[in-house]
Amino acid sequence: MAHRRHADDAPDGAKPWKMQLMKICRFDNGRLGVVEGDTVRDVTSVLDALPALRWPLPLGDQFIANLDKLLPAIREAAKTAKSVPLASVKLDSPVANPPRVIAAPLNYQLHVQESSNPAINHGVHMPGHEGFATPIDKYGLFLKSQTGLIGAGDTVELHWPDRRNDHEVELGIVIGKGGKNITREAALSHVAGYSIALDMVVRGPEDRSWRKSADTYSVLGPWLVTADEIADPDALEFGIEVDGEVRQRSNTKDLIVDVRDLIVRASKIYNLYPGDIIMTGTPDGVSEVKAGNVMHAWIEKIGEMNVGVR
Amino acid sequence: MAHRRHADDAPDGAKPWKMQLMKICRFDNGRLGVVEGDTVRDVTSVLDALPALRWPLPLGDQFIANLDKLLPAIREAAKTAKSVPLASVKLDSPVANPPRVIAAPLNYQLHVQESSNPAINHGVHMPGHEGFATPIDKYGLFLKSQTGLIGAGDTVELHWPDRRNDHEVELGIVIGKGGKNITREAALSHVAGYSIALDMVVRGPEDRSWRKSADTYSVLGPWLVTADEIADPDALEFGIEVDGEVRQRSNTKDLIVDVRDLIVRASKIYNLYPGDIIMTGTPDGVSEVKAGNVMHAWIEKIGEMNVGVR
Repeated sequence: MAHRRHADDAPDGAKPWKMQLMKICRFDNGRLGVVEGDTVRDVTSVLDALPALRWPLPLGDQFIANLDKLLPAIREAAKTAKSVPLASVKLDSPVANPPRVIAAPLNYQLHVQESSNPAINHGVHMPGHEGFATPIDKYGLFLKSQTGLIGAGDTVELHWPDRRNDHEVELGIVIGKGGKNITREAALSHVAGYSIALDMVVRGPEDRSWRKSADTYSVLGPWLVTADEIADPDALEFGIEVDGEVRQRSNTKDLIVDVRDLIVRASKIYNLYPGDIIMTGTPDGVSEVKAGNVMHAWIEKIGEMNVGVR
Repeated sequence: MAHRRHADDAPDGAKPWKMQLMKICRFDNGRLGVVEGDTVRDVTSVLDALPALRWPLPLGDQFIANLDKLLPAIREAAKTAKSVPLASVKLDSPVANPPRVIAAPLNYQLHVQESSNPAINHGVHMPGHEGFATPIDKYGLFLKSQTGLIGAGDTVELHWPDRRNDHEVELGIVIGKGGKNITREAALSHVAGYSIALDMVVRGPEDRSWRKSADTYSVLGPWLVTADEIADPDALEFGIEVDGEVRQRSNTKDLIVDVRDLIVRASKIYNLYPGDIIMTGTPDGVSEVKAGNVMHAWIEKIGEMNVGVR
C-alpha cells in the first residue's frame, strides 16, 4: 500500500480540508486510528477535543462534523502514536453515528438488465422506467436503517436464511458538510470521504427499505478515505469475490446517476447532515450468499475488506 | 380535558413505570413540559439529571431511554413549575432524537381498497397480497427519514407542489425499552407512549421511503401520552379534518396488523431502541393537501393538533 501523501507534499497550497489526506478507521469498540500500510496508529486521544454533548443532541455524526478541525491533530498524533498491526484489530464502521443510510437502486445499466429476472424483482420491483430519464427518476432513492450498520470486522447475520440473500457491493459516500439543495458544482465539497459499502438484501416483494435494512445488512468499511485522496469518485474500479469466486466487477464510471448527482438529488428532499451515508448502487453480478461464506470487497484507492456471513 | 390521574390515585400498587401517568411535551426549541388541560408546566430543569454524553453516542433517544427514571422528578417538578398557556407555546416533536421512523403500509382494509385507485398506486404500489396473510406480510414495513421529523407547532412544506401530496393520519408508537425479537405478550411493556402521527406522502412511482421522507413529511405530536394512560391502543377513535372538512375517521380496532404485532415484526429484523417511532398505518380517506391548508388531527385519549401546510 502506497504511503499517504501529506499536506507537506501538496503542491497547491490547498485549503485546510484539502491539506489532510488520510485513511481513518474506528477499531476495537471505540478507538480511532490512522491506517498506514499494514499498521494502525492509535490516535484515540485526539477525541478528547470533541465537546461533551447534552440531550437533545445535534443531528449528524459529531466526529465527522468536526473532522476538518480535528485533522491537524490527528496527523500530528499519528506521527508518534502507538502502532498496532492492522490484522490484529477489529474494524468498526468508520462512521459511528450516521444520521441516515441513503441508497440508490438500479444505478448501473447491466444491473438494471439483470433485474428483469423474476428471482430478483419478484414481480413487484420491475426495472422498467419508460417515460423517465433514469430508473432513479422513477423509483427515487431509498433508506436503509442506520442503527444496524456494521464494520468490516463484523459479520453479516442472515435474517431470512430460507430465502435468497444477496451481496451488493458499491461505493459509499460519507457526507462531511450538510446542506439542502446542494448544487452539482458544490457537491464534492460536501464529501468527507469514501468507503466500501455492502448493501445486503433479501430478495422478495417487500419494500427495499425493509428487505435491505435488517441489522447487519449494511456494511461500511474498512475505513474512511478522506475525500481528497480520490480526485474522481466516478472512475474507481471495484468488485467483490465470495469464497474466492469473482461475483461483481465494475467501475464507478458506469454509474447512471453519478456521485455528484446523487448528492444533488438527496439534498433536494433532505437537509443532509455530517455522517449521512449515500450508497451509490450496485453493478451486475448480484448473487446469493450463505452462512459460512466470506465476501472480499475492494475499491481502487480505498482498500479491501473481508466480511463473513453467518 | 380531564385532570391527569396520579400515582396516588392508582388502585393497583403498580410498578414505577405504571405509576406515572402524564402528557409530556417538548416546546419552544428545547424546553420540556407537562400538559395539564390548557396549560404547560415547564419542567425543563429536570433535564439537568441527564448525563452528558461523548461521541460515539449510544443509540436511542437519551431522554426516552431515561424516562422511567425521570418521571418521579418530572411529576414533582410539575407541582410547582411555572405554568404557561398551551396556546402560547410552539410544540416540537415529543421525541427529539428518534433513531428511526418505522411505518406500516396498507394496514386498514378500507385503505387497502382505496389504494386500487391508480392515482394512489401509480401502477407500482399495487395493494394485492394474494398468497400472503396481510398486505404487510407481502410488503413489510418501511422507513421514513427521522431527521426531518417535525412537531405540531411546525409546518409541512410541500417538496413536490405540482404533484398530489396527501395527509395520512395514524397512531404513533414511541418505543421506550429497546430489544430484539420482542414477544407479543411483552410488546406493550416496550412502549413509552403514544402520539398522533402524520405520514405525509407524495403520490408517485418512487419507493415509499423516498415519497414519504422529505423534510417535514413526518409529524409527531402534540405530545407524548405515557403508555399507561392508554390501556388498549387498539381501540382508539381518530381522524383528521382539512380546513374543517372531515377527511379520515376510523378506529385503531380496524388495524389489520395491530400495535403488538407491529412491535413484534419490527423487532424481528431490528434491535429496537428507545425513541424508535412506529407509525401504525392510515385508514381510508387519504386525500390531497395544498399550501395554505390546515390539518386538524386528533386521537382519543391523546389529544389534537393543528398543522399547517405551505
